Amino acid sequence: MKVHPRCSYCLLSRVHLEAKLSTDDEELMHKAILGGIEVLREKYMPGMPAAELATPMHRKAYEILNDNDPYIKMKELSNKAAAKVLPIIRSHVYNGHGNDNDLFKRAILAAVIGNYFDYGVMGLDVPIDVFEETFIEHFRRGLDIDDTDRMLDKLSNVVYLADNCGEILIDTLVLEAIKRMGGRITLVVRGAPILNDVTLEDIKDDNIFEMADRVMTTGSNAIGIRFEEAPLELKEALENASLIISKGMANYETLSEENYRPIAYLLKVKCDPVGEDIGANKGSSVAKLLE
Amino acid sequence: MKVHPRCSYCLLSRVHLEAKLSTDDEELMHKAILGGIEVLREKYMPGMPAAELATPMHRKAYEILNDNDPYIKMKELSNKAAAKVLPIIRSHVYNGHGNDNDLFKRAILAAVIGNYFDYGVMGLDVPIDVFEETFIEHFRRGLDIDDTDRMLDKLSNVVYLADNCGEILIDTLVLEAIKRMGGRITLVVRGAPILNDVTLEDIKDDNIFEMADRVMTTGSNAIGIRFEEAPLELKEALENASLIISKGMANYETLSEENYRPIAYLLKVKCDPVGEDIGANKGSSVAKLLE
Repeated sequence: MKVHPRCSYCLLSRVHLEAKLSTDDEELMHKAILGGIEVLREKYMPGMPAAELATPMHRKAYEILNDNDPYIKMKELSNKAAAKVLPIIRSHVYNGHGNDNDLFKRAILAAVIGNYFDYGVMGLDVPIDVFEETFIEHFRRGLDIDDTDRMLDKLSNVVYLADNCGEILIDTLVLEAIKRMGGRITLVVRGAPILNDVTLEDIKDDNIFEMADRVMTTGSNAIGIRFEEAPLELKEALENASLIISKGMANYETLSEENYRPIAYLLKVKCDPVGEDIGANKGSSVAKLLE
Repeated sequence: MKVHPRCSYCLLSRVHLEAKLSTDDEELMHKAILGGIEVLREKYMPGMPAAELATPMHRKAYEILNDNDPYIKMKELSNKAAAKVLPIIRSHVYNGHGNDNDLFKRAILAAVIGNYFDYGVMGLDVPIDVFEETFIEHFRRGLDIDDTDRMLDKLSNVVYLADNCGEILIDTLVLEAIKRMGGRITLVVRGAPILNDVTLEDIKDDNIFEMADRVMTTGSNAIGIRFEEAPLELKEALENASLIISKGMANYETLSEENYRPIAYLLKVKCDPVGEDIGANKGSSVAKLLE
């Protein structure tokens, strides 16, 4: 996905959020903004991939703030919130009628809604206490783009690209469904802390490791996957996958610049540029397959 | 008022809005953003007056867009909408009980609420069709900071600094009230188009000229009043006023850097930085007097 004019100020607002999460020092906040402006000036270019602007923006902010994980408390909060609502979500996924295929489809829907567990995108935050209500509402509404039927025969060797903390717990319902259907799973998490994204560290206390046949990382703290920084094993896994399941906007921004197929993008559309690119309105629940 | 980190990306979002209002050419939109980034890099400095960043940001955008009034249609829309709701607002101001003092106070409240006629501030736009409902709700709620009582004995020679199109029609209720109480009025509008702000051109068809004893301008299209660019007669008027009534955030941002007294700031708080500076939450109705 290419950069949109809106990305410029949205990213600067994220830098400010990171500064506020990291420090009370107003001078340091100004310095983080100044760093963001400097990166904008150096990098912003029409037609560039959006992530090639986002990654250096965040990295500069983290460097200036001298903080390699400003979202750490927010990530813990996300995980706690998700753990709390998981039994309710699980009951919605398992209590419906139908076979394993139906279960898979409901799990996909739940995982897309789980993509709401992402804080800091301007204008579409969901407070924890209204999440459950929101979840049920979105579950009833279903997917706005729904290609799940066409994913069913592609589950033998899935590469699952995780997105946020919290959300990852909801993703386990999809992992479970794939395992029930005999599929093999490669779970991919971020190589180092960035935004609210899940890393190895964030899942070490859960039994998520055991649900996947193998776990690998993106190799760095880049937004989504930055292929110059990704390990060879990840590229091989993507090439050999029967299906890549890509969660969230950051993975979409970077994978949409590549040609790995078949790939299923599962996400909540949280901003207009991504919405325009993927062909859905802001707020939509998307499970889009490209073959 | 000093610049806040948030001003950086809010201003960049305004540049984008101006580009969208002015053109469909995506390349030109990117150029406007690039221009905004360049001004941010050149000017943004902790501790600087916010308007000293805002004015060159907007000017650069107008220059790149080759458009000296991107808001022109929006301004017409504001004026039409205000003309439509003015009779309702007038009836609320005049139908209450009490004397001229009470009338003045209700007119001030209406004029503060009229400051909602300002489009484009991120996150607090009010669509035309809900304005009337919103007005009545805010009228019932009253002022959050209310120093109107202390203005009553200062109305002999008022300098009234106007803000937006549309809003100016609601302001006439205050001008009327001041005239009823025997006061003299100097009305000040922007020297050239900037944002949704009212200029001589915008009021030439109304009878607003006749309501004021004299009309002058800020001398340029700067945000609020840029004193290097303001005519001497304006400075003299401000010095000799029995009361300066300053409408809206842009006038506040610039006048709060000066020492003209007594000055009454009438505004709706539309962003956190102004709210923090003036001591009221976002969304508050403020009529604050400094003596």
